[in-house]
Amino acid sequence: MHFDTEKELAALRETEAASENIFDGLILHVKKDLVDLPNGEQAYREIIRHIGAVCVIPVTEEGEVIVERQYRYPIARVTTEIPAGKLDSREEDRLDAIKRELREETGLSAEEWTYLGDYYGAPAYSDERISMYMARKLHAGHQDLDADEFLDVHRIPLKELVEQVMDGTIQDAKTQVAVLKAARILGV
Amino acid sequence: MHFDTEKELAALRETEAASENIFDGLILHVKKDLVDLPNGEQAYREIIRHIGAVCVIPVTEEGEVIVERQYRYPIARVTTEIPAGKLDSREEDRLDAIKRELREETGLSAEEWTYLGDYYGAPAYSDERISMYMARKLHAGHQDLDADEFLDVHRIPLKELVEQVMDGTIQDAKTQVAVLKAARILGV
Repeated sequence: MHFDTEKELAALRETEAASENIFDGLILHVKKDLVDLPNGEQAYREIIRHIGAVCVIPVTEEGEVIVERQYRYPIARVTTEIPAGKLDSREEDRLDAIKRELREETGLSAEEWTYLGDYYGAPAYSDERISMYMARKLHAGHQDLDADEFLDVHRIPLKELVEQVMDGTIQDAKTQVAVLKAARILGV
Repeated sequence: MHFDTEKELAALRETEAASENIFDGLILHVKKDLVDLPNGEQAYREIIRHIGAVCVIPVTEEGEVIVERQYRYPIARVTTEIPAGKLDSREEDRLDAIKRELREETGLSAEEWTYLGDYYGAPAYSDERISMYMARKLHAGHQDLDADEFLDVHRIPLKELVEQVMDGTIQDAKTQVAVLKAARILGV
């Protein structure tokens, strides 16, 4: 399907009329902007600026995925997630970033990398863009966690992970997308 | 794979030591909490409290999906997304909420609803939980948008949407997950 982008933009675009800085944290930057709507009215938009992130689904020769069990404070529970992390800077090469995160969190390096595309987790209020990769031909090494990072590393067959995504056991967005994409690519 | 939840919690849990309210917006509630880490140290966690959301992939008898083209201010572009919306309250029934959002945004009602599970978009810093549904046996009606809501409604074959998710054209998280789940269920 083809969209007439210029006509669409004219009909739908919101433009900044004023911007208020609410919070500059280490991870989250919060702004409250007044915007001009397509009909000439105005509205407020509360938005998050985030540096961006990367994640990887590491798949072994045996069709197992390396996952992490990690406590997520905002939802007060331990979750099953694929390895992931924030960029060091907005300009950082995303493949370099995920290679670093994979090594730090699991000790793994990989010979083969497949780019699985990007997603915006919450485009209504955040600019966080996450780039996804699949890593194969894995090599073991030493974990090197951040000082405030605690996680356990496990292996789960991709087939089992797909079932856990489909039945709702796994509720992390990046893990759901990457598992379903990898399964489609690998025919699982 | 079975996890010993109690042992895991003891090893990984972070507990609130102090909490600072940063921002109480209409959509976003931002807090900065000091937490006790499993090793006895402390760290800050910047977190978003969000009321929660729902989304739906409406599939026609012809295998087409009803999608919306909408301007997303935080990322300054028009995106292709499935219908979605916030809950009116944390207690609101999620199926009721998505029936309302579908009707308001597209005019559609549906006879058949399939629950596709939930996801957390960013469990590292937000408690936003999104519930996904698939709607079939659709009936047309009248759109009834919010005053500050502008969007165009289109139909795209599910098969084409899957390609656009796989090749990265569609970058909205909820649309990626719901399209891939629906495709798996419907054998597309």
